[in-house]
Amino acid sequence: MTVNEEVREEIIIDEEKLIEALERQDIKTFREEYLILHPYDRAIFYEKVDVGLRKTMYFFLSPKELAEIFETSEIDENEYKQFLQEMDTTYAADMISYMFVDNAVDVLKELDKSQIATYLTLMNKAAASEIKSLLHYEEYTAGSIMTTEYVSIPQNSTVRSAMTILKNEAPSAETIYYVFVVDEDNRLTGVVSLRDLIIADEDTLIQSIMNERVVSVLVSADQEDVARMTQDYNFLAVPVVDFQHHMLGIITVDDIIDVINEEASDDYSKLAAVSNMDSFDKNSLSAAKKRIPWLIILLILGMLTANLIDLFTDTISQVALLAAFIPLIAGTAGNSGTQALAVAVRGIATRDIEDESKFKLLLREAGTGLITGIVCAIFVVGLIFIWKHEFIIALLVGAAILVSIFVATISGSFIPLFMHRMKIDPAVASGPFITTLNDVISIIIYLGLATTFISSLN
Amino acid sequence: MTVNEEVREEIIIDEEKLIEALERQDIKTFREEYLILHPYDRAIFYEKVDVGLRKTMYFFLSPKELAEIFETSEIDENEYKQFLQEMDTTYAADMISYMFVDNAVDVLKELDKSQIATYLTLMNKAAASEIKSLLHYEEYTAGSIMTTEYVSIPQNSTVRSAMTILKNEAPSAETIYYVFVVDEDNRLTGVVSLRDLIIADEDTLIQSIMNERVVSVLVSADQEDVARMTQDYNFLAVPVVDFQHHMLGIITVDDIIDVINEEASDDYSKLAAVSNMDSFDKNSLSAAKKRIPWLIILLILGMLTANLIDLFTDTISQVALLAAFIPLIAGTAGNSGTQALAVAVRGIATRDIEDESKFKLLLREAGTGLITGIVCAIFVVGLIFIWKHEFIIALLVGAAILVSIFVATISGSFIPLFMHRMKIDPAVASGPFITTLNDVISIIIYLGLATTFISSLN
Repeated sequence: MTVNEEVREEIIIDEEKLIEALERQDIKTFREEYLILHPYDRAIFYEKVDVGLRKTMYFFLSPKELAEIFETSEIDENEYKQFLQEMDTTYAADMISYMFVDNAVDVLKELDKSQIATYLTLMNKAAASEIKSLLHYEEYTAGSIMTTEYVSIPQNSTVRSAMTILKNEAPSAETIYYVFVVDEDNRLTGVVSLRDLIIADEDTLIQSIMNERVVSVLVSADQEDVARMTQDYNFLAVPVVDFQHHMLGIITVDDIIDVINEEASDDYSKLAAVSNMDSFDKNSLSAAKKRIPWLIILLILGMLTANLIDLFTDTISQVALLAAFIPLIAGTAGNSGTQALAVAVRGIATRDIEDESKFKLLLREAGTGLITGIVCAIFVVGLIFIWKHEFIIALLVGAAILVSIFVATISGSFIPLFMHRMKIDPAVASGPFITTLNDVISIIIYLGLATTFISSLN
Repeated sequence: MTVNEEVREEIIIDEEKLIEALERQDIKTFREEYLILHPYDRAIFYEKVDVGLRKTMYFFLSPKELAEIFETSEIDENEYKQFLQEMDTTYAADMISYMFVDNAVDVLKELDKSQIATYLTLMNKAAASEIKSLLHYEEYTAGSIMTTEYVSIPQNSTVRSAMTILKNEAPSAETIYYVFVVDEDNRLTGVVSLRDLIIADEDTLIQSIMNERVVSVLVSADQEDVARMTQDYNFLAVPVVDFQHHMLGIITVDDIIDVINEEASDDYSKLAAVSNMDSFDKNSLSAAKKRIPWLIILLILGMLTANLIDLFTDTISQVALLAAFIPLIAGTAGNSGTQALAVAVRGIATRDIEDESKFKLLLREAGTGLITGIVCAIFVVGLIFIWKHEFIIALLVGAAILVSIFVATISGSFIPLFMHRMKIDPAVASGPFITTLNDVISIIIYLGLATTFISSLN
């Protein structure tokens, strides 16, 4: 792809050479060429080759070296299971134990209970107990994405002793750029950045340079809220505490980026009415499986609309032209509803909406709906009149469009806000419900008015 | 908001005390209480109070202190101009010169040319020339989001001399966690992380511990590609070079997060057919302005569909029930097209799609469309037959739904891929064009078939 060439200075992976070395069982050449690559590029190669060559790689690489590959985002969650099954069980357990705890937990969560138990038994006690302590946190909470590999120091340390601790922990900690200060009960009392430590004199007491107003998150906090906060404050890592302010772990910025992406994909897929677009489908059947349920729901809801139109068959058989504008009216209501919904959902996601009162917001949306409705109605009346010279029908369509845009805009913003308050994900409110509501309302207005004024139409 | 309470350990901003201090002109109390806050919280307060109090703040805070507030993401781009106009011009110029260069450029880009020139003239030469060097980069390129405040060292340094340079540059550099190694011509030759420096012995040569396979981006690269790469490699910062590999600047992870968010909002708003949802509208009129153009385009396209249906008025006036299913068929085609589109757009955005051939992808989408179409058609035929006992109409609707889902799925994935290849943003292909295409095709099939078999329907 041209995109890649433009962005990256050429880091050429000599795939053929690597594959050849694997096939020749030439461990020296393979390791020389392979280990020089960035773990992400190693992962791309690892994923690409076929099982036979991967099995050779398990002999050529130590569990620790393989762990680095598994840390990358290139390996999808749904691939963990398959790859682990290719490995010797002890080798796999070792590999998991060398991963950062939070990532190890992500891998294990994809497995069956019996497999988790096996791997935990086979790995060293220390790693197993750290992993166990994280395994039980509920999904989408701060606890589920934190790691326990952070650097903490007692509050009575000096800069010198802090630097010594840092040097020792640097190889295993996920980040050393923040050092967390704790009291004797492991309660979080402050934070010092490595930047501050480097500038400070070696004999300075940590207490005198640490930031006491450290921002932390509760272990039960929603991961999306944590992500938002990390962005607001531009943190590279944020400490996680329990309700008594005991330090439990940290969440690093790379995991925050994953949450942001997940959330964006999630909102997007809900707006498009496809369930779970997280992973890209490799075959038609699994892709169809994700789309059919939504289409069926939408079909059933569409039958309601059809049923409703059916009530007006008398009117339609008298003036068939009326039917021509039904998709236009329903479509416009749907479009303006989706616009209002998208603004509300995105506003909730970026927290812009929290800054102001719900009442003001609804008032503003009502205003927007009215302006939009009037402009579109005038436009459509003119258009139909010029095209068909049917003034009465033009007025009917215009009235239906005005009212339906107005109602669609208000419901498109009110329903997600209401759902948000009820603690239901507002993005779910997208397509189906709002669209059907708008269809029904716009058709009742349009065909209802048409039936009332049918005498003027004939 | 409850959300906040859950997430953050209470950092209470005593707003009343701060406001009171400002009103009493009590500079000491104000500074004591205010400067202890995180810049983000300071920004929230700064934004909230009215102009009068903000003007007092300009007397109570140094330009450097105010710069910290302007660095936060809380201050929106559209607010820069207003706030700068409240300040004394020299004070504002000073303030801008104290910001990180990339952020200073973001502020200036919001202003008129004459204002930019004024501020650049008033600030110190060094800051002005750094800002000027960044001002001309095109929007959405790596150059437009990079900063020149990075730490670089000559390749023949030792760890000790590198640490000395770091300590000196720490107060002004945007990140000190990566140190970039350059040759005598300022060409990028390697990178060392602060983590590596801390672990290494002081007398070690930088060349022996630096990573020579440093990943960099060209200054002209698209910012979205840079963002994706930074995520793949889990970088905290990425170096920017020209085509001769001269080091020009770095892009830090906080700016990458902004790009990711921008991109997500952008794709989302295009799917919802609202232009530019970046900033949240504070009044009905400006919100309506963003929505009306799309609604009008959709209305015009909808008139095409209406025109098409109008060709079949004879058929409809004979069997008015046919009209009842028009919105259902058009809606289903639209829904399945949007699903395929969303998967394709998201796949392009996350680069999943680049991993495989376009032909295989289209073949798979055709398969998905066929499966989805058959399932939905069977479902709808059954439903209509049970409900209306109209077997012929049920078959007509089923046939129309099968074909239109099939066509919609293929066009929904083919059109964005084609646009991507033509270097047009595929998200633009969303609503309008695909929906209209699907409407037209599905209605021709449905009403065309109905007209052909009209004798069996009467």
